[in-house]
Amino acid sequence: MTPRCPATVRQPIAAVDTPALILDLDAYTRNLERMAALVGAAGLRFRPHAKTHKSPLIALEQIAHGAVGVCCQTVAEAEVLARGGVLDILIANEVVGEAKIARLASLARWTRISVCVDDARNIADLAAAAKALAATIEVLVEIEVGGGRCGVAPGEPARVLAEQVAKASNLRFGGLQAYHGNAQQIRDFKQRREAARHAAAMTTETVKLLSLAGLACKTVTGGGTGTLMHDIEAGVLTELQAGSYVFMDVDYGLNLDLEGAFDKRFENSLFVLATVMSKTRPDKAVVDAGLKALAFDSGPPRVHGRDGVRYVSPSDEHGELALATKDAVIYGERLMLIPGHCDPTVNLHDWYVGMRSGRVERIWPVAARGAAV
Amino acid sequence: MTPRCPATVRQPIAAVDTPALILDLDAYTRNLERMAALVGAAGLRFRPHAKTHKSPLIALEQIAHGAVGVCCQTVAEAEVLARGGVLDILIANEVVGEAKIARLASLARWTRISVCVDDARNIADLAAAAKALAATIEVLVEIEVGGGRCGVAPGEPARVLAEQVAKASNLRFGGLQAYHGNAQQIRDFKQRREAARHAAAMTTETVKLLSLAGLACKTVTGGGTGTLMHDIEAGVLTELQAGSYVFMDVDYGLNLDLEGAFDKRFENSLFVLATVMSKTRPDKAVVDAGLKALAFDSGPPRVHGRDGVRYVSPSDEHGELALATKDAVIYGERLMLIPGHCDPTVNLHDWYVGMRSGRVERIWPVAARGAAV
Repeated sequence: MTPRCPATVRQPIAAVDTPALILDLDAYTRNLERMAALVGAAGLRFRPHAKTHKSPLIALEQIAHGAVGVCCQTVAEAEVLARGGVLDILIANEVVGEAKIARLASLARWTRISVCVDDARNIADLAAAAKALAATIEVLVEIEVGGGRCGVAPGEPARVLAEQVAKASNLRFGGLQAYHGNAQQIRDFKQRREAARHAAAMTTETVKLLSLAGLACKTVTGGGTGTLMHDIEAGVLTELQAGSYVFMDVDYGLNLDLEGAFDKRFENSLFVLATVMSKTRPDKAVVDAGLKALAFDSGPPRVHGRDGVRYVSPSDEHGELALATKDAVIYGERLMLIPGHCDPTVNLHDWYVGMRSGRVERIWPVAARGAAV
Repeated sequence: MTPRCPATVRQPIAAVDTPALILDLDAYTRNLERMAALVGAAGLRFRPHAKTHKSPLIALEQIAHGAVGVCCQTVAEAEVLARGGVLDILIANEVVGEAKIARLASLARWTRISVCVDDARNIADLAAAAKALAATIEVLVEIEVGGGRCGVAPGEPARVLAEQVAKASNLRFGGLQAYHGNAQQIRDFKQRREAARHAAAMTTETVKLLSLAGLACKTVTGGGTGTLMHDIEAGVLTELQAGSYVFMDVDYGLNLDLEGAFDKRFENSLFVLATVMSKTRPDKAVVDAGLKALAFDSGPPRVHGRDGVRYVSPSDEHGELALATKDAVIYGERLMLIPGHCDPTVNLHDWYVGMRSGRVERIWPVAARGAAV
């Protein structure tokens, strides 16, 4: 049922069918190298988030660039990654429900797997499933440090869960996860730093409390592309989870650096190639990429390299463009769109079309697309 | 690469893994029957839009309920539908680009296929491709009647294109497509009716103009779930294209009838089943269905049958719930979410889990999921 691929290797970009998910291999490789240099200089472990790319091949390239393994969000993603050769995986999320936990325990028999918890019943369920399969699962207690999503409160509630993990058979206490999702897209540098520092302070307190209780946090994992430099500076994380840096998107591109300029540390390497399929009015045109080719939760895509062309609004299979001048685009023309939000855009596609010097060089499946269960 | 199915046939709903796309087979069947009665009484041809469900099996059930065939939006969808046994397909959209047009002509050799145009160059390209394969393609001229998307202006510009189609070898002029996408979700009954009437008036004028030029419109196709009754009343369309009626969604559920009540003509038959995977705070909880399981372009999902539980905001794999009371949901509980917008939600899933009386009765692939190219 995998839909046909819009390209074949060695094709020029003009022959690639649309809509297609394009990866600029040079920009992507520079992003890998820059991140390797950054985390190498910081002396931290790097465990990039594979929920961004959903590809074991990209995960293995990240590992070749110094990553210790990857994170993902679901058991299904972990299964695809492990079968693709990625043998050190953190599910940076809670896994709830009997069937999923059984599959997690089964994976843990042959690959190194760790998972997060924020609930005592979940810990008991994990221990029972691991015991039934004679597996060992490493468990991190997730603390809520401002993201307002999953995670137990820092401090004493975290200590109680950590102790339960440490005492459970077939579980190994690994440390803490402290991810501040909402801080990643705070535009202002100082405000973003403040949020990251606040999260780091709560994390440091919790690490100390656990240490006093004899619970050593071998791993303190978290961070993202937005707070990367702040997380390094704050110094409590032992492991960084940034994922979007490989691709970037319009949303991350709006983050500002200390001088108030757009932060250009990483480059846009991910695009959706689209065709102008209707041009019947002077100020408007329609492309063939809408809600089924791009994610819009963080706003519309930006038309790459074309100031006079703005992507205004999507419908299911169409995107409406506003044109500054009558001839800003022509019928049949092809445009590169920078997605508003990379992760859910990738999840709409089945293939990466890897381009270099105007030709298709690699075609990679989005192997864990839709691997939600 | 098709991700694993969250269910098996005969399972009780409690055993279905999450997130899962659930089809309530009773509600779905009632929607099929109601539509058959409505269009039957109106004496119109019915060609439901398969971009909603992307399933040849559902298309064949629609045909068994009186539809003459289906529409879709892309060549890839048409290929999947045709291979699944649907042998009368309108691509209710323009098809642009050499590779796609060649595939369209190839399909037209063995199945009945029609397509829309709004550009003279596109007509020439279609004719050349059809001639090269000795195929015949039926062509409808799309007119822009208020939707502001594809389509040539009604009246003279439409006549010029229709004449070009009629004269082209290997093309057969079929008539007009007149779809007013923006009118579908106008909440107020009279305003919605007004928009549909306005579109119908422009369409009627164009049909007359073409008729005077000796161009008979055998087919005048358009309409949607929102304007259904108005389209029937206006009387110019010979064929109705409503698609969302099979599933419905939160957005369509906000349309009002003449008395100002929510229009309950069709029922919600489509849901996303989700699990409460984190419950660490009194007023909040987190479910395992976010941007990769639900579309948010028309707003968040509604929690089915649970007044005290509101889906507030998504992240990639999570949904944050606001709770009216501390125990409004409990850890591990499962909730049925009514999608904000059905079409792009379906496009995120690989399987329909068809339920009846609390058990899984049918599992259908979303066979044309991602079939965008």
